[in-house]
Amino acid sequence: MIKNNHLEYFISVVGKENVKSDKAHLIAYCYDATKERFEPDAVVFPRHEQDVSDVLKYCNDNKIVIVPRGAGSGFTGGALPSEGGIILSLERHMNKLLEIDMQNLLGVVQPGLINMEFQKAVEEVGLFYPPDPASEHYSTLGGNVSENAGGMRAAKYGITKDYVVALRAVLPNGEIIRAGKKTIKDVAGYNTAGILIASEGTLAIITEITLKLIPKPKFKQTYMGVFPDVNKAMNAVFKSLASGANPVAMEFLDALVIKALKQKFPQVSLPENAGGILVGDVDGSSQAEVDEQLKTLKDSFAQYGSTEFIIAKDDEEAAKLWFARRNASPATAIYGTKKLNEDISVPRSKLPEALEEIYKIGDKYGFNVPCFGHAGDGNIHVNVMVKDKTNEKEMHDGHKAIEEIFQLVVDMGGTLSGEHGIGLSKAPFMNIAFSQAELELFKSIKKAFDPNNILNPHKMGL
Amino acid sequence: MIKNNHLEYFISVVGKENVKSDKAHLIAYCYDATKERFEPDAVVFPRHEQDVSDVLKYCNDNKIVIVPRGAGSGFTGGALPSEGGIILSLERHMNKLLEIDMQNLLGVVQPGLINMEFQKAVEEVGLFYPPDPASEHYSTLGGNVSENAGGMRAAKYGITKDYVVALRAVLPNGEIIRAGKKTIKDVAGYNTAGILIASEGTLAIITEITLKLIPKPKFKQTYMGVFPDVNKAMNAVFKSLASGANPVAMEFLDALVIKALKQKFPQVSLPENAGGILVGDVDGSSQAEVDEQLKTLKDSFAQYGSTEFIIAKDDEEAAKLWFARRNASPATAIYGTKKLNEDISVPRSKLPEALEEIYKIGDKYGFNVPCFGHAGDGNIHVNVMVKDKTNEKEMHDGHKAIEEIFQLVVDMGGTLSGEHGIGLSKAPFMNIAFSQAELELFKSIKKAFDPNNILNPHKMGL
Repeated sequence: MIKNNHLEYFISVVGKENVKSDKAHLIAYCYDATKERFEPDAVVFPRHEQDVSDVLKYCNDNKIVIVPRGAGSGFTGGALPSEGGIILSLERHMNKLLEIDMQNLLGVVQPGLINMEFQKAVEEVGLFYPPDPASEHYSTLGGNVSENAGGMRAAKYGITKDYVVALRAVLPNGEIIRAGKKTIKDVAGYNTAGILIASEGTLAIITEITLKLIPKPKFKQTYMGVFPDVNKAMNAVFKSLASGANPVAMEFLDALVIKALKQKFPQVSLPENAGGILVGDVDGSSQAEVDEQLKTLKDSFAQYGSTEFIIAKDDEEAAKLWFARRNASPATAIYGTKKLNEDISVPRSKLPEALEEIYKIGDKYGFNVPCFGHAGDGNIHVNVMVKDKTNEKEMHDGHKAIEEIFQLVVDMGGTLSGEHGIGLSKAPFMNIAFSQAELELFKSIKKAFDPNNILNPHKMGL
Repeated sequence: MIKNNHLEYFISVVGKENVKSDKAHLIAYCYDATKERFEPDAVVFPRHEQDVSDVLKYCNDNKIVIVPRGAGSGFTGGALPSEGGIILSLERHMNKLLEIDMQNLLGVVQPGLINMEFQKAVEEVGLFYPPDPASEHYSTLGGNVSENAGGMRAAKYGITKDYVVALRAVLPNGEIIRAGKKTIKDVAGYNTAGILIASEGTLAIITEITLKLIPKPKFKQTYMGVFPDVNKAMNAVFKSLASGANPVAMEFLDALVIKALKQKFPQVSLPENAGGILVGDVDGSSQAEVDEQLKTLKDSFAQYGSTEFIIAKDDEEAAKLWFARRNASPATAIYGTKKLNEDISVPRSKLPEALEEIYKIGDKYGFNVPCFGHAGDGNIHVNVMVKDKTNEKEMHDGHKAIEEIFQLVVDMGGTLSGEHGIGLSKAPFMNIAFSQAELELFKSIKKAFDPNNILNPHKMGL
């Protein structure tokens, strides 16, 4: 319960209409995509950077916990007020596209701007912002930066961090800092932007983001490679990429996902006997470049055992090819009532072995573990399907399976999370991935920015 | 003067042959490209990561200053032992290419490996490491990472930070940490690698670097655009890039540099009446792609006032076109006995205005200020030419001019350094570029890693 004098201070800064502590608002801001719930003590909607500064300074002086929030679409609880305190909601007012700088190919945005709105705006003027997390229609760019969001186009174009040129941010003590400039090269001072990216709102509140844009590729085409089994498909992933293929995306579906799609979506047209599928786009500045890319992929896939290579002739055919991938997640529901869904990432060459071992862990506990995702960059969405979520033993086994999968992945040189971050959900597994010295260093970094630990405390296990 | 018992400890760790405190070694390790000289108390050559750990832990416990050093080719004094202490020299033993991972397109190296040796090794197997600082033939990859080195190919391919996938490093307390994995996506924990890049050896000693590689482009061609003046050339830079040109490099020479080249190198073949020149390579996976790039550049340059566009037909012609750019630096010597050389960087669209204002500052003090460099990424090498370096007033004016140039650049949204870092040389200007809050944050970050301030103290103004 927050004291009235605190609320009065927030009202004096942002105005009455931008401070909410009624039950309806506390409930509206208590969730994210984890489906965990923690009610905040109040929700504050800053109008601009100076509001953020004033609120943070006050919270720091009074040791009030503050949790920044964009769309609340995170999968690991990063925006949940698990320790109570204030939700600082950036999506209501601080959601503007400030500038598209056509001369320097940069976009300047406020953190609450939705990714897709930005994509659309820059595409209208012939430019392109590649990072496309699955949440692109509702997640905010501030959230994307805080989680270092990936997406399907990462195989060719990289992830959010590859596009962040500069940030403005407010430190817990209320000081406003700039990190980076509108320049391509800048080696003056520490790379503060580098450490703010993926820091899950634990170090500072990002108030402005300058993003790199590229010319929009003029030509694009969708392909699908069909393989008898997922092992052959995964081999084709890293071998085709190592031999020079450079598709925008290279997504995969395993046999369990393919089976689920056919059952759940009878209209889906997937080749008979497909045991593993790779699907994606290629793009380029000319049709010749696209054709060359398609040829490289087709030849390479054939060399590694594909039985079929389909090229979409038009947008309608492309949509059909993509339908399976886009509906992979809902389709897996046929295997259980609860999906324990993790986004592990491994070096690409480890994909065949990683999947083989993941299935073995599933078998050991009696779970179906359908897998799909961003094979082109080694990022797998692993789904341990619990048949009956009310069965305590089964749930317990599910979590044990997940823990074994994490250990496996780390042993292979991979990571707990390719896209979703650590937040609350993965915090218990940090000691699988990091040494004591590394965890201590994280704590020291946290303390350097936030000595009173008011910003999103306990997230990332800190 | 270092105590004998300290030297004995170092000898017990790395062996007698790897600890030097004789005068010849102290002199050999007292300089860098700044020509400033500071003798260390001793030079230690670690054989491997564990040596680095043992030496650091001891220095931390005994508050002994330690300065990491690669090739000593830095331009801002980052490797100079300005506070005495131990030079930790990584180029003698820790200089191995550990792995070229063909399956994941990665290279794993020790910090003392020379950039060009790495480039050659990866090109032999059809891969490509783009960052090519002018020092590529002698600078080490550890130094490149610590300074976030750029180079000519940055216009298309980015800079060192864009290629660092993972690091191993030793903290001042001797703890060995890993930062990043051999994965494309990794959002678990803070981005420690992000803050170690460009930290100039002040936070940790880097002991292993995993670098991203790309397939080597199969086709390459050199172009030169000739303009009546540098203003038109600078306009063509950002406008051609904004309209979709994507050259590997877009280097520029201004009128003073062109004049100096003709005088110093009579054999150079530069077009008459050239007041500004852009030169660079384009590349691609097909000759058609290269041709298209050349056409885009030619058309765009013509639109913005070029008088001539030359395409090299073969390697010999390419070498001729590049000769002018490669000899720009020595040519400027005709204007004075002392070059005050700074590597400022501005948003590309500010290049025309930046140069105009820089020349005005030169005129005000009576200096020739020939400029050249990496126009394609906004990074200008500004050379304030002091005619007589023994003339105190002239030297003083030269430094005043440099300070005015820094202020100008920062006011334009640019930065003190695009490539060379801050080190000692630019430390006095940090308060031009950063607010008090930002400088305080840098100090907090430094303290989080190095609470006893033993690692490269006072560099970057810390």
